[in-house]
Amino acid sequence: MKKIKMGMVGLGRLGIQHAENIAFRVPQAELTAVCALEEDKINEVQENWGVPYGYTEYDEMIQNEELDAVFLCSPSSLHCDQIEKALDAGLHVLSEKPLGTTVEECKVAEKAVEKHPDLVFMLAFMRRYDPSYVYAKKMIDEGKVGKPFLYRGYSQDPESAIDGTLEYLAHSGGEFIDMAVHDIDAARWLLDSEPKQAWAIGGCYAYPQFAEYDDGDNVSALMKFENDAMGFLFAGRTAPHGYNVETEIIGTEGILRIGSVPQKNLVEILDQDGVRKECSQDFLERFDQAYVDELQEFVDCIIEDRKPDITVYDGTKNTKIAYDLTGSFQENKLIDIE
Amino acid sequence: MKKIKMGMVGLGRLGIQHAENIAFRVPQAELTAVCALEEDKINEVQENWGVPYGYTEYDEMIQNEELDAVFLCSPSSLHCDQIEKALDAGLHVLSEKPLGTTVEECKVAEKAVEKHPDLVFMLAFMRRYDPSYVYAKKMIDEGKVGKPFLYRGYSQDPESAIDGTLEYLAHSGGEFIDMAVHDIDAARWLLDSEPKQAWAIGGCYAYPQFAEYDDGDNVSALMKFENDAMGFLFAGRTAPHGYNVETEIIGTEGILRIGSVPQKNLVEILDQDGVRKECSQDFLERFDQAYVDELQEFVDCIIEDRKPDITVYDGTKNTKIAYDLTGSFQENKLIDIE
Amino acid sequence: MKKIKMGMVGLGRLGIQHAENIAFRVPQAELTAVCALEEDKINEVQENWGVPYGYTEYDEMIQNEELDAVFLCSPSSLHCDQIEKALDAGLHVLSEKPLGTTVEECKVAEKAVEKHPDLVFMLAFMRRYDPSYVYAKKMIDEGKVGKPFLYRGYSQDPESAIDGTLEYLAHSGGEFIDMAVHDIDAARWLLDSEPKQAWAIGGCYAYPQFAEYDDGDNVSALMKFENDAMGFLFAGRTAPHGYNVETEIIGTEGILRIGSVPQKNLVEILDQDGVRKECSQDFLERFDQAYVDELQEFVDCIIEDRKPDITVYDGTKNTKIAYDLTGSFQENKLIDIE
Amino acid sequence: MKKIKMGMVGLGRLGIQHAENIAFRVPQAELTAVCALEEDKINEVQENWGVPYGYTEYDEMIQNEELDAVFLCSPSSLHCDQIEKALDAGLHVLSEKPLGTTVEECKVAEKAVEKHPDLVFMLAFMRRYDPSYVYAKKMIDEGKVGKPFLYRGYSQDPESAIDGTLEYLAHSGGEFIDMAVHDIDAARWLLDSEPKQAWAIGGCYAYPQFAEYDDGDNVSALMKFENDAMGFLFAGRTAPHGYNVETEIIGTEGILRIGSVPQKNLVEILDQDGVRKECSQDFLERFDQAYVDELQEFVDCIIEDRKPDITVYDGTKNTKIAYDLTGSFQENKLIDIE
Repeated sequence: MKKIKMGMVGLGRLGIQHAENIAFRVPQAELTAVCALEEDKINEVQENWGVPYGYTEYDEMIQNEELDAVFLCSPSSLHCDQIEKALDAGLHVLSEKPLGTTVEECKVAEKAVEKHPDLVFMLAFMRRYDPSYVYAKKMIDEGKVGKPFLYRGYSQDPESAIDGTLEYLAHSGGEFIDMAVHDIDAARWLLDSEPKQAWAIGGCYAYPQFAEYDDGDNVSALMKFENDAMGFLFAGRTAPHGYNVETEIIGTEGILRIGSVPQKNLVEILDQDGVRKECSQDFLERFDQAYVDELQEFVDCIIEDRKPDITVYDGTKNTKIAYDLTGSFQENKLIDIE
Repeated sequence: MKKIKMGMVGLGRLGIQHAENIAFRVPQAELTAVCALEEDKINEVQENWGVPYGYTEYDEMIQNEELDAVFLCSPSSLHCDQIEKALDAGLHVLSEKPLGTTVEECKVAEKAVEKHPDLVFMLAFMRRYDPSYVYAKKMIDEGKVGKPFLYRGYSQDPESAIDGTLEYLAHSGGEFIDMAVHDIDAARWLLDSEPKQAWAIGGCYAYPQFAEYDDGDNVSALMKFENDAMGFLFAGRTAPHGYNVETEIIGTEGILRIGSVPQKNLVEILDQDGVRKECSQDFLERFDQAYVDELQEFVDCIIEDRKPDITVYDGTKNTKIAYDLTGSFQENKLIDIE
Repeated sequence: MKKIKMGMVGLGRLGIQHAENIAFRVPQAELTAVCALEEDKINEVQENWGVPYGYTEYDEMIQNEELDAVFLCSPSSLHCDQIEKALDAGLHVLSEKPLGTTVEECKVAEKAVEKHPDLVFMLAFMRRYDPSYVYAKKMIDEGKVGKPFLYRGYSQDPESAIDGTLEYLAHSGGEFIDMAVHDIDAARWLLDSEPKQAWAIGGCYAYPQFAEYDDGDNVSALMKFENDAMGFLFAGRTAPHGYNVETEIIGTEGILRIGSVPQKNLVEILDQDGVRKECSQDFLERFDQAYVDELQEFVDCIIEDRKPDITVYDGTKNTKIAYDLTGSFQENKLIDIE
Repeated sequence: MKKIKMGMVGLGRLGIQHAENIAFRVPQAELTAVCALEEDKINEVQENWGVPYGYTEYDEMIQNEELDAVFLCSPSSLHCDQIEKALDAGLHVLSEKPLGTTVEECKVAEKAVEKHPDLVFMLAFMRRYDPSYVYAKKMIDEGKVGKPFLYRGYSQDPESAIDGTLEYLAHSGGEFIDMAVHDIDAARWLLDSEPKQAWAIGGCYAYPQFAEYDDGDNVSALMKFENDAMGFLFAGRTAPHGYNVETEIIGTEGILRIGSVPQKNLVEILDQDGVRKECSQDFLERFDQAYVDELQEFVDCIIEDRKPDITVYDGTKNTKIAYDLTGSFQENKLIDIE
C-alpha cells in the first residue's frame, strides 16, 4: 500500500492530535515531517513517533520532495499564504478552519486552488465528518425531516477553558470568526442554502475583557436564508457543564437534535445530584472520531483522485459571513449578506 | 369555608377545562354561573355539574349579585371591555391571555384596574404557575444559574392540530400575538428585564394559507433586553412530535431546560423505533396542573386580600411587544421596542 | 350531587394526604370524620378543613350513621379487624396495603368481604392507579409489547429517609412485606400470572440494624411465574438519588420502562455536575396523582355500584407471597409458592 | 518502532473486524498471517490488506517463525487446544471468549499458560476495555459508589439477528455460555467477588427451537456473591429495539448505569413516534472502540513485558459458572458454585 506522506504544520493541542492521527489512525497516511516554532515539541514528536523530518521554517519543509501533502494547523492568519505556497510546491493541502481571517486572504487561496486543479484542497470543518452529523445529514437528504426550515446551533466552550481563551483573545478574530464559523458552515451545509440577512447581538456577561476587543463572551445571531429558512446561532465561552456543541434541524416532518447532551460516555450516574450524565470537556474528546474521519476523507480523495465536498469557496463564504456577523454585532444593525 | 362564587365566560375547550377546575379542583372556588353563545353547552355544563346560573349575555351575568368573580375565556378582542365591565360591577377578574388585541384596548383595562384597587385582577399566563417553571424561577432567583443572559423559548403546536388553527386563522391575531406572547411573557419574567430591540422572521414552510394574513406557519425572533440579555423565540404550527413548549435559560453558572422532551408520562418505550418517550399532544395535557394552580392563586389572592405578581401592565407590555414583533416580521426590519 | 361521606383512619404522613384528597381533590367525596390516636392531630385537621367529627376510638367512629365509607391508613396489623368491623357496620372500605400482616388475618377480611357483597371493598395499591402504570398496562393489554415475559421492579427509598425507617423497623414486617409487596402486586397485575417459585436474597450493606430483625437493608428476589414468565424484584433503603420506583416489562415485541428516572419535574439542569434531572424524594411527591385517582375509583365504584379490579384475594395473595419471600430470604432456600 | 506480528485465526464477522484492527488500528501491530477454513476469505483479506501469509491449517501457521502472536477467533471448542499449541510454539496468545466449552478444556489452557510464564496470554472479554466500563470501574475503585452490592446485567441480541442465532444453536453452548458469560465476567470484575450460589430460570417465549437444546430464548439468573452482594443477569435473543448491553452497579452511595440506552449515535429524533434515540444493532457497532482498546492492551503487554489483569483463571471461572447456571436452569434448582 502506497502511503500518503504528510507534513504537519503547527503542534498546538489540536495539531498534536492531528499529527497522532496521521501517524497511527489512518493507515494510508504517514507522518513524514512536522513543522512548528517550538524546537522541543518538534524533537518530542520526532522521537516519540519516529518522524524523519522536523522544521521550524514552513518554506523549508515544503521543499522536501518526499512529501505528498501538508496539514495546516497554524495561526489562522497564515493559512492562505501557506496554502498558496504548498499548492505551488505541488502538495495537496488540508487546512484547519477558518480558511483565512479576511476575505482578501481567502481570495488568494481561491486563486491558488484554481491554479492547481490536479491537487486536493480540503478544509477541516470537522463537524461534516462527525458520525452523528453525517447521519443527520443523510436523514435530511433522504427527506426524513420534510423541508428543513430552522437551524439552531450552539457552540459553547466550558468555562474551565476560559484562561486559554483569554490569553488568545487578541488573536482569535472574535467569537463569530473563531467559534460561530462552525455553525455558519453547518447551517449552510444542513439547510443547503446561503444566509442573506442577519442580526447579531451579545455581551460580556462574565468577562469584561472581551469588550476590549469589541467582542462578547457570549453572542448570538439570527439569520434569514435564501430559501426562507431561519438560522439561530449561539456561541459562548462560559458553559458550566462542558463543551456543548449542539445542533438542531427543525423540518416540516421531523426534528433532529445532535449532541443535545454532550455526554462523555455511556455511563449514567444516580447520586445525590439526581440522575446525570457527565459531559465532554473539550473538542478533542467530543470530535475524536471526526478528526480521524476527516483525515481519512482527505487521504481517500488523494488516492482516488477526487475532490472533497467542501470547497475553498465554502471557506471564503464562511469567513465572509463570520465577518458580516461581527460587523452586525459591533454596529448593532441588521445586515444584508453579499 | 367561604367559597368564591365564580362565573365562567366562554366554554370552548379551554373554557370547559377552567369551568371543571373551578367546580371540582380548587376547594375554595364554586362554579356559580357559566356564560357562552352556545345554549347547548350551557345546558350541558349546568346539568352535569349542577351549576345554578347560565347566560348567553355577559352583561346580564355580571349583574348576578351572588357572584364574586369572573374568569374570562372569551375571544381576545372582547377581554378588555369585559374586564372593565366586571370590575365596575364589583367583581374580581381572572382573564385569559392576551390582555387585549390592541394596545388601546389594554389601556382601557389598565384604567379599570387602577379605578378598582380593592379588586383582584389577574392574567392567566399559565406558565407562571406550572410547577416546573415555578421551580426554575426559584432556582434563578436563588442565583443557582448565576446571571441569566439567554432565554430560548419554543412554542410549537403539533401538526395534528393544524385544522383547528387554519379555521381560526382570521381571528388569531397571528403567531406572535397568539402563541409567541407566552414566550414574551416568560422571557420578561425569567430574565427580569424588558426587550428593547428585536428582529422577527419566518415563513410559510408547509401551509401557504398563513401568507394570506401576512403571517407564517413558523416564525422566530431575536430580542435584545435592557439588561443586555438575549432572547430567542420560536413559534410554530407543524411540530411532528407533539405540543412542544420548551424553555431554556442560560446563565453564567448554570443552564436550565424546561420541558425539552414534552413527555406524556413516565413510560419509556423500547421498540423497533429505538428508545423513546411519547409526547403530550395538547396544552390541556401539558399544563393540566398549571391551570389548577393559577386558579388557586387567583382564589387565594381574593381570600387573602393580596395582588398576584402578574399585573395588568404585564398584559399591556406582552401585547405591545407581540405587536412590535408582528410589525418587524411583516416589514422585515429591526425594531426598537417602546 | 350526592357526596360520599368518608371517615379517615390514621393521620400519619400518608393518612393526612389521603384526608386532604378526600376533603378537596375528589369532588364526590366528603371528609366527614377522622380517627387517630393523637388528639392534637385530630383537632388540627378538624379545624383546618372543617371536619365535623373526630374520634380516638375506631369502634365509636363506625357507629356514626352519617358515614358511607372508611379509608384505613392504620397500622397494617389492624387492617383486617377494622375491615371486618366496618363492613359489618355497613360501610364501604378502602384499605391501605398490605391487606394484613398474616395470611390468617387476610382470611378474616376475605370472609367479611364475602359476607357483604353489596359493599365496595378496595385495596390501595396505588401503582394500579398511577397514570404511567395505567398507560403501560393498557399497552400490554393491547398487545403492544407482544408476550410480556420479564418483570423487573425496583422499590427504593432514599437514604435521606433512613431514620424514619430505622425507628419503624420493629413494626414494618420487613422489606418484602413493607416494600416489595408493591412489586409483588404489580408483577402479578402486569404479567397476569401468579408466581410459583422464588428465591430471595439480600443483606445489610449499610445498616446492620436490619439484621436484628432477620432482615436486609437491600433485598432482591427472582420469581418464576405459572405462565413461565420471570420476575426480578429489588427493594432497598439506601438509594442515593431519591425515591426510585421503577418498573420494566420486557415482552417479545416491545419493552416498557416506567419511571426509570424518578424525575421531580420537567426541569433539566446543566451545571458542573453534568446534565441532570433532580429526583422525587418521597412517595407523596411521586404518586400524588395516583393517590387521587385511586380515591376517585373507590368513590366511583360506590356511586356506580360496581367493584374495583383489585380484590381482597389479591390482598391475601400479595401478603402470602411477601411472607414466602421473607421465608426464602431468612432460610436461604428456593421455595414453592402455594 | 518494532511491530508485533500477528496471525489471525478465524475470519467470521468478528474475526474480520479483529483482523482489520490488527492491520490498521493499532500502530504497533502488524497483520502477518490469517488462518481460516474458507480459502476465498483468506485470499480476499490477503489481497485487500496485503497480508503476506494465508493458511487453512492452524498447525502450519504457528510454525511460521515471523509470527510473534496469534489472535484466536475460532470455534470455542478449539480455543484451549489452540492456546496450548501456540504457547508451546512460543507465541503470545489473545483468545476470544469463552476460554473453553468445558472446565476440562480450560484446565489444559491453564497448564499451558503456567508452563510459559514468559508469554502473554489474554482473554478477549471486551467489556473490560470499553471506555464506559473502564470509566465505571474506575469510579467504583475510587469509592464513588460506596460499597457496590448489586450487579444487574442485560445482554440482549436484537430479534433482527435471530436467524443467525438459530442456525448456530447446536454449537453455541446455550445462552449462559454464549451470552451470559459476559455478565458473569463483568459481575465478578465490578463486584470484585465470586458468586457462591445461583438460581437460573427462563423459557422459550418466542422461539420453541431453543427447547430442543434444553435452552431458552430468554433466560435469567440470580446470584449471591461471597461478599454478600447480589447479581441479576438477563440474556435474551428477542430485543425489539437493538443490541442492548446494559449494566448497573448499585452501591451504598451511588449507582452507575452503563448503556441503559444503547444509542447508535448522538442524534435525537423528534417525530410522530415521540422523542427517540435509535439503537445500536450489533456488537461490532457498540464495542467498536473496545475491540481496538483490548488489542492495544494485548500489544502493550507484549511490548512492556507485563501481564493483563484478566487471567486464564478468570476464563476457567467464567466457563465454570456459566456451566453451573446452565445446570441450574436445566434442572431448576438452586445451586452452590464451587
